[in-house]
Amino acid sequence: MNIKEIAKIIGIDYNGASLEVTGVNTLKDASSSEISFVTNSKYLKDIEESKACAIIVNKAVASSVPKSAIAFIVDEPYLMMARLTKQFAPSIEDEDAPKAIIGEGSKVSPKAEIANGAIVGKNCTVMANVYIGSNCVIGDNTLLYPGVVVYRDCKIGSDCIIHANTTIGSDGFGFATNKLGEHTKIYQNGNVVIEDDVEIGSSTTIDRAAFGTTLIKKGVRIDNLVQVGHNSEIGEYSVLVSQTGIAGSSKLGRNVVMGGQSATSGHLEIAAFNTFAARSGITKSIKESGGTYAGFPLMNHKMWLKLQGTLARLIK
Amino acid sequence: MNIKEIAKIIGIDYNGASLEVTGVNTLKDASSSEISFVTNSKYLKDIEESKACAIIVNKAVASSVPKSAIAFIVDEPYLMMARLTKQFAPSIEDEDAPKAIIGEGSKVSPKAEIANGAIVGKNCTVMANVYIGSNCVIGDNTLLYPGVVVYRDCKIGSDCIIHANTTIGSDGFGFATNKLGEHTKIYQNGNVVIEDDVEIGSSTTIDRAAFGTTLIKKGVRIDNLVQVGHNSEIGEYSVLVSQTGIAGSSKLGRNVVMGGQSATSGHLEIAAFNTFAARSGITKSIKESGGTYAGFPLMNHKMWLKLQGTLARLIK
Amino acid sequence: MNIKEIAKIIGIDYNGASLEVTGVNTLKDASSSEISFVTNSKYLKDIEESKACAIIVNKAVASSVPKSAIAFIVDEPYLMMARLTKQFAPSIEDEDAPKAIIGEGSKVSPKAEIANGAIVGKNCTVMANVYIGSNCVIGDNTLLYPGVVVYRDCKIGSDCIIHANTTIGSDGFGFATNKLGEHTKIYQNGNVVIEDDVEIGSSTTIDRAAFGTTLIKKGVRIDNLVQVGHNSEIGEYSVLVSQTGIAGSSKLGRNVVMGGQSATSGHLEIAAFNTFAARSGITKSIKESGGTYAGFPLMNHKMWLKLQGTLARLIK
Repeated sequence: MNIKEIAKIIGIDYNGASLEVTGVNTLKDASSSEISFVTNSKYLKDIEESKACAIIVNKAVASSVPKSAIAFIVDEPYLMMARLTKQFAPSIEDEDAPKAIIGEGSKVSPKAEIANGAIVGKNCTVMANVYIGSNCVIGDNTLLYPGVVVYRDCKIGSDCIIHANTTIGSDGFGFATNKLGEHTKIYQNGNVVIEDDVEIGSSTTIDRAAFGTTLIKKGVRIDNLVQVGHNSEIGEYSVLVSQTGIAGSSKLGRNVVMGGQSATSGHLEIAAFNTFAARSGITKSIKESGGTYAGFPLMNHKMWLKLQGTLARLIK
Repeated sequence: MNIKEIAKIIGIDYNGASLEVTGVNTLKDASSSEISFVTNSKYLKDIEESKACAIIVNKAVASSVPKSAIAFIVDEPYLMMARLTKQFAPSIEDEDAPKAIIGEGSKVSPKAEIANGAIVGKNCTVMANVYIGSNCVIGDNTLLYPGVVVYRDCKIGSDCIIHANTTIGSDGFGFATNKLGEHTKIYQNGNVVIEDDVEIGSSTTIDRAAFGTTLIKKGVRIDNLVQVGHNSEIGEYSVLVSQTGIAGSSKLGRNVVMGGQSATSGHLEIAAFNTFAARSGITKSIKESGGTYAGFPLMNHKMWLKLQGTLARLIK
Repeated sequence: MNIKEIAKIIGIDYNGASLEVTGVNTLKDASSSEISFVTNSKYLKDIEESKACAIIVNKAVASSVPKSAIAFIVDEPYLMMARLTKQFAPSIEDEDAPKAIIGEGSKVSPKAEIANGAIVGKNCTVMANVYIGSNCVIGDNTLLYPGVVVYRDCKIGSDCIIHANTTIGSDGFGFATNKLGEHTKIYQNGNVVIEDDVEIGSSTTIDRAAFGTTLIKKGVRIDNLVQVGHNSEIGEYSVLVSQTGIAGSSKLGRNVVMGGQSATSGHLEIAAFNTFAARSGITKSIKESGGTYAGFPLMNHKMWLKLQGTLARLIK
């Protein structure tokens, strides 16, 4: 899409050079043919190194745009970015892609649907009513139980088991809200990557990234009815017990254990080998490894036990 | 069904006029050919204006039944109402309805099933393993991802997106329990109506009303794994974050934001533009607009922060 | 499988008698042709009465193995048991079983899949995109809404209703973790049994037992998005409101009511006719019947109300 068209869509009067823009991306990941944006001062640190050909900003941060990029100055950068994501959203299915390739020894139910461009490895089992989207790649020996849905462009490793009615790669929960309270969808043009030896329970939902990838690393175990938000990352061998929610862009290190019905806020980093009791609510990053936590707000597990004792005495 | 048969089913000795009864409904919504009931004194205020041809009541409220209606006096009105709902439950599919109508430009997967009597608008996408029940109406440009199930008689507007494995219109959780602790199903003979420009995540469940309609208004955004109970109403542009639960018959105004894993009790009214932090538990109606709340029990968000500080000091 | 092979798999040098072993099972339920294990001192009480032909133990409890059984002494009994479960896991589908039998008057959608060996009773309705696994048995008059998945070997009674996209019999969340933090799956070779007159909501997940049965007794009502862990038992007419989680091996008596978003820890016993408010978190067994509880940690409901009053005064 030509940058002149883009300028028009976001309401900018642009008379500069004509450029072909291939996508929208974060400051950090944008290539020199992509456009980026600053919607949160937290990410401003990435602006100087950004390779983006143009950056959507508000007046306040306009002076930070590097000389290599065109500065598009708007009132509502988040809303303008949302509008642009629609322009670069791929079609729901890639009908022009070649027919799906199914590896040797794989059993695919005639009631499953595998879209064009998908590749399924060897010795996989794809059961009834599974849907695998365009350009997905599934490794070897992987088992998808009935009703599993994998949206386009996602990758699942080898030796994985995904239980019934689980959804991989549905859209992250992203939208920009204008001053009237109306929402504009941020198209989620990223994907989900699940590494090898991962098992995921039934009716769990793992959302695709807005940009980039939601990543489930090797050996992770996820139970039923768990929510993994867009752009999050679950470290090797981590364990998410039933009904846990991982909010968007949070990163768990390896062997983190999240008890049942626990949750994290978005944009956190949680160090390896930390354990969180059932119902824990994590709202801040945790840099130290190996702790045991509980409660909401979160506290050291021993402290939590002490607090319960104190409360019990209070009402006696 | 003749009123004489109805009397028999609920154990009443009735020798009055012969009347054809077309359904069971609430006091407020019953037409003059429908039977109604009083199972909760909260709704007694509606009895005088009720057009119902007969009303099932216990002895205590029998004198409140208006002269226009026959009073059916029973020991357990709730249980008797439950029994009657079965008589008026439509068949699971309406096989006699005409073949479904699919609008111009719509793509329907051959692996989807659209029951008789359904109408799908223009330029919709209905993906594999979707089920659309009898007499459903879907607007234009709406996208149903794989595994979406829409029960009979529901309506979905235009420009909606429903993500994979989400269920619209499953039965509300309704039953009457007798003195032995045994349950009798209250058939959920209402429906779900979703207005235009609504996006709903994956594995979310929106229950049909017992009577009347569960309503999701224009521009609402619902995340994954959210529960919306029967007869509730979600106001325009409201936002329900992942794993939230809205209990039956609660009404949210416009632009209400429910954080992740938050919940409401049933039968509440929550004014517009209120925001609830993650894990909020709302048990009372909120009449003022524009507040920010947290906690369970719910309190002003600032108060909640103060409480956490106080508790932290207590255990030092 | 010969016991010599088993010894090899778990790293034991065994020169004893040659025996055909037919499965792995708990101390209590193992037959004389099955192997068992002690992984938790809690179950040591069952060792003396165990009929198992061999028992996997660590050094500390080796002397408790009865003379009727071979003692396999290993460092990590739980991990070794996990390895063995794989050997006895049945195939995903039993292709050699006879074609499924469908009872008189039952309607099965051509878009449903019923695997070999399954038996569906009379007057059932099996809607589109339902999957019923090998050797499942479904009673009479039972209704499975679209997208329901029933894994192999499960049983569902008569007069049941299972709502859309619900999964019955997916694998329990079981794995053994070695010293490096890597997980080995414990194959879940048990099943789920649902008795008569049970209604289950949409997108609910009921996991199959590791050994034995996850049991949902007569007349139970389960709402949407509920998790029932492996080996648990839900007593007659109990009620699980939306988004509740029952952890593995917990047993609820009859007419227990679990409010919305409530949960239990694993391995609990909860007496009949107890009621738990929304968000209750039960971490200990409850032997008395008929109470009303709330909170996390759990307390008497009146105490919980008192605590909230005390906290409110604290911050004034």
